[in-house]
Amino acid sequence: MAVIECVPNISEGRRGDVIDGIAEALRQVPGLAVLDVQSDAAHNRSVFTLAGDADALTRGVPLLFERSLAAIDLRTHKGEHPRMGAVDVVPFIPIEGVTMKECVELAKTIAADVAQRFSLPLFLYEEASSNPARKNLEDIRRGEFEGLAAKMSQAGWAPDFGPAQPHPSGGASVIGARMPLIAYNINLNTNRLDVAKKIATAIRMSSGGLRFVKAMGIPLEDRGIVQVSMNLTNYEKTPIFRVFDLVKREAERYGVSVLESEIVGLVPSAALQQCAEYYLQLEGFSGAQVLEQKLRTRREA
Amino acid sequence: MAVIECVPNISEGRRGDVIDGIAEALRQVPGLAVLDVQSDAAHNRSVFTLAGDADALTRGVPLLFERSLAAIDLRTHKGEHPRMGAVDVVPFIPIEGVTMKECVELAKTIAADVAQRFSLPLFLYEEASSNPARKNLEDIRRGEFEGLAAKMSQAGWAPDFGPAQPHPSGGASVIGARMPLIAYNINLNTNRLDVAKKIATAIRMSSGGLRFVKAMGIPLEDRGIVQVSMNLTNYEKTPIFRVFDLVKREAERYGVSVLESEIVGLVPSAALQQCAEYYLQLEGFSGAQVLEQKLRTRREA
Repeated sequence: MAVIECVPNISEGRRGDVIDGIAEALRQVPGLAVLDVQSDAAHNRSVFTLAGDADALTRGVPLLFERSLAAIDLRTHKGEHPRMGAVDVVPFIPIEGVTMKECVELAKTIAADVAQRFSLPLFLYEEASSNPARKNLEDIRRGEFEGLAAKMSQAGWAPDFGPAQPHPSGGASVIGARMPLIAYNINLNTNRLDVAKKIATAIRMSSGGLRFVKAMGIPLEDRGIVQVSMNLTNYEKTPIFRVFDLVKREAERYGVSVLESEIVGLVPSAALQQCAEYYLQLEGFSGAQVLEQKLRTRREA
Repeated sequence: MAVIECVPNISEGRRGDVIDGIAEALRQVPGLAVLDVQSDAAHNRSVFTLAGDADALTRGVPLLFERSLAAIDLRTHKGEHPRMGAVDVVPFIPIEGVTMKECVELAKTIAADVAQRFSLPLFLYEEASSNPARKNLEDIRRGEFEGLAAKMSQAGWAPDFGPAQPHPSGGASVIGARMPLIAYNINLNTNRLDVAKKIATAIRMSSGGLRFVKAMGIPLEDRGIVQVSMNLTNYEKTPIFRVFDLVKREAERYGVSVLESEIVGLVPSAALQQCAEYYLQLEGFSGAQVLEQKLRTRREA
């Protein structure tokens, strides 16, 4: 039984009836779980967290496009968050019993279907991207809805699927596959912000550190301590334990110790198992040995 | 949604039709999963691994008693494994969303029901035990079926439920609640068996070590190394990481390092999460943050 997470972001965060209507329609799709819906009025944007297998998502995601395109008109849309489409971005995320490759295929299949059904341009991004210049969401979305027609007329900006011009009210959408993000913070037993900033610089990809780490040093004023605040963008290749051990080692350089760490929000079970395997030097361990996983597999067979 | 594991041991390991018939009957019980059936002809014994909530087990376990009592006659039963009943022992094990106390209550409820329905004496053991002298299975079963009538006539050996004499063909059964066992081994980078044995002695409860550890030192002849082979009988109170760290520290005393460790068979997800929390110094972490757990909760809601 495959579990794929899908986190569509739509350009509507104010009209509760529209957002609830879409959530309710998705809940009717067999096998599709609506785990969470977060709306932000200032951003005028909502984020749906869905989960299911490829079949459930193949049924549910086009429904989300249909409803969103019918209800949202970007020609009159205002909001703080950058956006290019009524359905702005749709990532597929492998969770269990499914490969990244399969998520990429799913993104492409759904993109082709949606582009054809709704005459909507679709751009592939992240792991599904066909072009290094179009891998990052920010690069694709630069210019937003208002600059989209001009951008799409430039060389290199034909969409991966659908018409060569924006959808009049729905713009264009970005769709693809990526690993789950883990929001991970390490608190240091010091109030020295310079230490947290130096550690963040040392460990993050952008300044020479680990490939799948974004990091910054921030103060936790009320506690009188500092934090290395991170996003881990691929826990399989840059595991939590390696980040923890490296931050701990760098902190020692300044005579500082690690007070504690924290995971904010959800984390895949495999990311925690990885830590147990590493620190316990576990050989030959498989996720199939986890009792709950065995139970789940049996029940759904 | 509660998940309780139940591992009944019955005194039949040879007649495939009897064993299959019982498994098939259990599979028909709504909500009950038959995860595994292991039969041993020399022991003349079978071990069923079941999982479900209290309702499913309240329906399934009496069915297992009914079928086993109808098919097994201990007056003619031979086998290497000690046994006292046609259904010999039935432990209930809390896995998820359920307390030990609830498993104890479930064991008592089912014991009372089964004792009444089948005129069978039932002894409570482990966490369900009402008497320290009757906590260990071995103490209750000593004398086996053949010595049961004499034993039950002694002071202190009246059953917890049911008649004061053995069931003519089915003897008596032991029922109760316990934590899941984890079979955990640590391999040492040495061929010195004395070191493995000294470490086993140092860390196991019986000779002064950790409360919920059984351990022995054994050679792995084909690899030319030694192993500290363990059963962890309560991972909540004696966690895997504490055992690992203590063995590692004891090994250093002899100039020996830990090569690797291994978990044999199934392990509850919480036992691995515990290790990640410990080594990463994770504060404020909850199992509800594990994505798969959230998914499972939603789906079954």
